[in-house]
Amino acid sequence: MDKGLISGFRDIVGSNYCLYDIHDLYAYSYDSTPLFHAMPDLVLMPSCTEEVSEIMKIANKNRIPIVSRGSGTNLSGGTVPLEGGIVLNMLRMNGMREIDQENLTCTFGPGIITAKVHQEVEALGLFYPPDPGSMKISTMGGNVSECAGGMRGLKYGVTKDYILGLEAVLPSGEVIRVGGKNAKDVAGYDITKLLVGSEGTLACITEIIAKLLPLPEAKQTMVVYFHTLTSAALSVQNIIAKKIIPASIEFLDQATMEVVEAYAHIGLPSDMRAMLIIEQDGPESVVAHDIEKMKEICLKQGAVEVQIAQTKEEANNLMAARRSALSALARKKPTTILEDATVPRASLAQMVERIEAVAKKYQVEICTFGHAGDGNLHPTCLTDERNHEEIERVEAAFAEIFDSAIRLGGTITGEHGVGIGKAKYLETRFNPATIELMKRVKNAFDPHGIMNPGKIFAKSNRRRVVVSHVCGCERANEIR
Amino acid sequence: MDKGLISGFRDIVGSNYCLYDIHDLYAYSYDSTPLFHAMPDLVLMPSCTEEVSEIMKIANKNRIPIVSRGSGTNLSGGTVPLEGGIVLNMLRMNGMREIDQENLTCTFGPGIITAKVHQEVEALGLFYPPDPGSMKISTMGGNVSECAGGMRGLKYGVTKDYILGLEAVLPSGEVIRVGGKNAKDVAGYDITKLLVGSEGTLACITEIIAKLLPLPEAKQTMVVYFHTLTSAALSVQNIIAKKIIPASIEFLDQATMEVVEAYAHIGLPSDMRAMLIIEQDGPESVVAHDIEKMKEICLKQGAVEVQIAQTKEEANNLMAARRSALSALARKKPTTILEDATVPRASLAQMVERIEAVAKKYQVEICTFGHAGDGNLHPTCLTDERNHEEIERVEAAFAEIFDSAIRLGGTITGEHGVGIGKAKYLETRFNPATIELMKRVKNAFDPHGIMNPGKIFAKSNRRRVVVSHVCGCERANEIR
Repeated sequence: MDKGLISGFRDIVGSNYCLYDIHDLYAYSYDSTPLFHAMPDLVLMPSCTEEVSEIMKIANKNRIPIVSRGSGTNLSGGTVPLEGGIVLNMLRMNGMREIDQENLTCTFGPGIITAKVHQEVEALGLFYPPDPGSMKISTMGGNVSECAGGMRGLKYGVTKDYILGLEAVLPSGEVIRVGGKNAKDVAGYDITKLLVGSEGTLACITEIIAKLLPLPEAKQTMVVYFHTLTSAALSVQNIIAKKIIPASIEFLDQATMEVVEAYAHIGLPSDMRAMLIIEQDGPESVVAHDIEKMKEICLKQGAVEVQIAQTKEEANNLMAARRSALSALARKKPTTILEDATVPRASLAQMVERIEAVAKKYQVEICTFGHAGDGNLHPTCLTDERNHEEIERVEAAFAEIFDSAIRLGGTITGEHGVGIGKAKYLETRFNPATIELMKRVKNAFDPHGIMNPGKIFAKSNRRRVVVSHVCGCERANEIR
Repeated sequence: MDKGLISGFRDIVGSNYCLYDIHDLYAYSYDSTPLFHAMPDLVLMPSCTEEVSEIMKIANKNRIPIVSRGSGTNLSGGTVPLEGGIVLNMLRMNGMREIDQENLTCTFGPGIITAKVHQEVEALGLFYPPDPGSMKISTMGGNVSECAGGMRGLKYGVTKDYILGLEAVLPSGEVIRVGGKNAKDVAGYDITKLLVGSEGTLACITEIIAKLLPLPEAKQTMVVYFHTLTSAALSVQNIIAKKIIPASIEFLDQATMEVVEAYAHIGLPSDMRAMLIIEQDGPESVVAHDIEKMKEICLKQGAVEVQIAQTKEEANNLMAARRSALSALARKKPTTILEDATVPRASLAQMVERIEAVAKKYQVEICTFGHAGDGNLHPTCLTDERNHEEIERVEAAFAEIFDSAIRLGGTITGEHGVGIGKAKYLETRFNPATIELMKRVKNAFDPHGIMNPGKIFAKSNRRRVVVSHVCGCERANEIR
């Protein structure tokens, strides 16, 4: 990058917040997604909307890629600066600007940590439901950009369902404000919902207005073990059929249980094919009634054992199996590839069986856990990226898994985003007319293609989960 | 329109479903919005997606406007064919294609009547919450195009919150399928939510997948009268502050109560400044508890009288005041202009007072009722379109009302859409960069501008609620 340009950007954010040392750049060359790396040319940490706007104007004029980023916890390579350029680190814009208890909204900067939003609103008896797995470190800007999900999707929906308004900076530097605190608003196109889940490819989000609910009065947790996948799946289906919508229904398969038990020693049985962890929240009487009814339903469907937490501590212990799943899996092999193929809830058992068959066919180790209530599974492959032959098989296995999901009326990504990881699969999800339409929408926001280039839309047609490292070190060195 | 073209269109839908007689055309020259009329050149009634696609291809090639329409119950002039062309009557595509009880979804054609969806899913113990006032005759295609609201917005949200997937035909004739039955799906941009509320300006919707909930176990209704607007508004605020979210909180001002009483003779008092009709639904114990608590809150805020329905019949009687409001108002003067200025809930009392002041200033008769729980008010002007001098004052009054709503953080339309009626006000809601962005998004779908031209985006800068009649009779005559 031209020295004059760097100095221009430094003048905007101040020298403390303009990074181009190779070690600093390296820290921004990857995110939580394995196998994807690329060096940025520059990292800028703006403090306000005006700085973002100034940066965008120069970047747009000079066709410099812009990748906005919070904590980089995404799992689709969404914040890897594939084509170099500028990483906009949004962590300084992290203020909770307002909690409006009358309108049940809160307004904050994109750099705020998700769990901080939870804490601040819960202290006032309010509730922001989306709870992505990385919520302790993820930022709300990232959650909005990826439309993060979490365990409460079945009952409460996902990030999109709670974002009422946004301020964003277009590549041109123009600032737009869409949506707001109104419960109803049909003025013009819904740019708010379009930006949610747009993976940083349309605009840079600089302020977020979220909807809040009253915090549920009570919560209870139960764990159920099954000898067969079908029993577990039928239990989920029958719970819904009996008109009970629990706060979450989490699923772990036998392989995941084994790995979790070896890691956490929490007493998980080794002879069960599946476990469900079910939470219900709401008024105390309703929770007690629903938990009792769900226990009956599970037992009727052949559940081997039902444990109901009697205290908050017991509930946390029961949840521990699910919460430690990814950590447990991640320590087994050098590379953990966590996917999020999703199907309509009723196809859950079929999908789990299909994943097992594919793992066997390609002789790869895949453990599956996830959100049974909303059909959002996390088939997780334990592998080693240095073993190229195995990685080829992993890639082939995931291709079949995504195809299976699509054939069951599902989708290639339930909550992680397309990013780089699944760009090649977009064409299995949508027909060419739809993809071309999406590209034209992208162009309406970003005619020069500077916003997070290379994401969502594949540049080549080869389908792959895995790309080689893209080393931008030389380019990074040039700028000094 | 060229005879060859008409005969081409007739071949697609069949001669019974291709109308160009002047009397038929006249029936499609207006909708439920007063003051807007324009003649189409042709009315086509397609029976399937393929026919829509064939029609669109020819229309796009020949730059013929396309206005898709259900029952025409919208209140923003959304289905008036301002620039002539083809009205696509979607009523033949009215099938309930599937109610999926396992995934809690239903799939139907755009021409299905909203109330039919309610009936069919409720018969299975399921629930489609959006309940726009015109639901007995409105179509779901219209509801989706306008993002219809209704009384249950506070607790349950609006149409957008329930639309999971769409099939739509682009102006090019290409068919896209977006979204689906998945509870979580972040593959690509959310074209589904973008199409909801796009007022027929982007594509023609040919199939809809909606999300369902379990039907609430119980429902109860109460009516509360107040001597002051402030007491009513504070009651609403305190109900929410106590973490109760009722299914609906409807509001009627004194002027509306008077007109309703004169029409329906249901015993409404004449000396009250405001009434609230509150409904709660859910598990029986919760409903009883919430109703009792809301009664206490209202009395504490100075409510004069609280009536709680003891039977379903009593509940219907209490609701009668609200349900008959529009009919009662409509019979008083030849022209009824029903608006939907919306503010964040906490600004409700301020907004009602502002509307009263504006009515007084311009000496126009405005009655206000609406959805207090979600800040969505219906200031309704009783006037006579033949009195041009008064209509000028009405126009000036509404301009001030919309400006007031915007100043309170509100919006120009909560649930009716922009259409023609509020196109001139879009610039008070959004800055020029946002409007230009929306126009580019429109262009990404509809490069030749054939989809419902003249809607949402104003062609001239004069702000007005009212336009003169546009008579297309001569053009209509030419085609024979």
